[in-house]
Amino acid sequence: MRNQTLSIIGVGLLGGSIGLAVKERLKGVRVIGYGHRASTLQRALKLKAIDQPADNLAQAVAGADLVILCTPVGLFGKILTDITPHLKDNAIVTDVGSTKASVVKAGEKIIGRRFVGSHPMAGSEKRGVEYANTNLFDQALCILTPTRKSDPAAVRMVSEFWKTLGCRLIKISPMEHDRMLAEVSHLPHVAAAALMGLPSRRATQLCGKGFLDTTRIAAGDGALWRDILLDNRTNMLASLAKLRGELERVERLIKTGDQAGLARWLDERRRKREEVGVRNAI
Amino acid sequence: MRNQTLSIIGVGLLGGSIGLAVKERLKGVRVIGYGHRASTLQRALKLKAIDQPADNLAQAVAGADLVILCTPVGLFGKILTDITPHLKDNAIVTDVGSTKASVVKAGEKIIGRRFVGSHPMAGSEKRGVEYANTNLFDQALCILTPTRKSDPAAVRMVSEFWKTLGCRLIKISPMEHDRMLAEVSHLPHVAAAALMGLPSRRATQLCGKGFLDTTRIAAGDGALWRDILLDNRTNMLASLAKLRGELERVERLIKTGDQAGLARWLDERRRKREEVGVRNAI
Repeated sequence: MRNQTLSIIGVGLLGGSIGLAVKERLKGVRVIGYGHRASTLQRALKLKAIDQPADNLAQAVAGADLVILCTPVGLFGKILTDITPHLKDNAIVTDVGSTKASVVKAGEKIIGRRFVGSHPMAGSEKRGVEYANTNLFDQALCILTPTRKSDPAAVRMVSEFWKTLGCRLIKISPMEHDRMLAEVSHLPHVAAAALMGLPSRRATQLCGKGFLDTTRIAAGDGALWRDILLDNRTNMLASLAKLRGELERVERLIKTGDQAGLARWLDERRRKREEVGVRNAI
Repeated sequence: MRNQTLSIIGVGLLGGSIGLAVKERLKGVRVIGYGHRASTLQRALKLKAIDQPADNLAQAVAGADLVILCTPVGLFGKILTDITPHLKDNAIVTDVGSTKASVVKAGEKIIGRRFVGSHPMAGSEKRGVEYANTNLFDQALCILTPTRKSDPAAVRMVSEFWKTLGCRLIKISPMEHDRMLAEVSHLPHVAAAALMGLPSRRATQLCGKGFLDTTRIAAGDGALWRDILLDNRTNMLASLAKLRGELERVERLIKTGDQAGLARWLDERRRKREEVGVRNAI
């Protein structure tokens, strides 16, 4: 998209990092940023994550060839409705939301064939453009969720965009995305938060690196995760039921003192984790 | 303990790291190593984690001023019984076990007042002396669990020993140790392993850094963790019940679509995690 215009709606950690990466890797692209706080836009401008702040959504997308929604998922519906009358004819719209079924449904309904859902697996528990990072997407997995309705040229353009930012790409359906992400992202978040509910302040003074790693993601933004969990409700409830099953199983093994059974349960999961670790050596 | 003899029973990641740290920080100390595999002892010798391998437990502890048990907790009972007739009169015995109530009970019963329980919060999901590291204990928290029965000179000596290796020290009772560690270490291990039980191989290909961090400890040795979980059974069952309560609560919030309640639940845990993060900045 050389010499074109990119519009970033929501200039936080992810939106800001997209801006920085684009400024470095896609010379000639003009980056417009929009956010509901003027101070954030000024910071983004100062950090050179955007070239130009917009005062409103209409202005933000008016000249854009590509629009990327980087706000919490809960705001997407309203934003899509608000921007659609102001888009150029050929504008392509994508997003970085952590859920895809409802987002793609809304995107295709409101924007049409030129909406393509994306989910770059990058970011951290940190918030705000001050944590933006030029290399955030380098080697990150980006899940694209095109459907039968998607415009092939739009899918190609969005794919190329993420590849230019350093992402590895994978394409799956929005439904499958949400089902699998419940297990590898949304449920782990809930488990980490649940673990934080237990220890007293005194007990947390005894925590080691294991505890800190296991619960790190629980420091993520509450409102953002509330939106994700409620949006992916059906899969979350199914995953929570499965987790309950796992915990009931280990509880029984501990209660009955089943040495062999408990070692087997732990070792099966250790092997699976080691395999995942090898494939994702970072 | 300058110019004295240290005996390390079990020369794996922890035992080997103790050896390396002692060789660097306590000049003149002779380090005897014992393990059930001769090949491990040869590797430890080659890595200079020990000065001398012992053929059996009697030989390993015969001249030792300080003996440290670094095997899995499940072997402690037998080892304590086997070494006690061979200890020097003034020998002090400690351990690095992850549980303390049963260990200290056995230690005091078999060894007497000169057994002092320790739990240095160091290590990783890795196994084996090849992962030993001179600085493993630097800044690590070491929990000491002396009791009314402990010999004050032995407690002092063991305290000094860990401090020399770089540890920060805290003293609590064995019971309190096990209750708190269930929440900040043993339950998180079970939760990480349980999370590994859910995703298909295909789904794990979509995992990001969050999932990898949350489940990292599930790669720990199964037999070692089996011993810990069964030894700390009562506290584990209480902690599992509390975790179940947390998960039932979040399940209800998701099921009823309670936006405010879910955000509050997440934010309370986020704040707690942030506070822990600040205190444990590493």
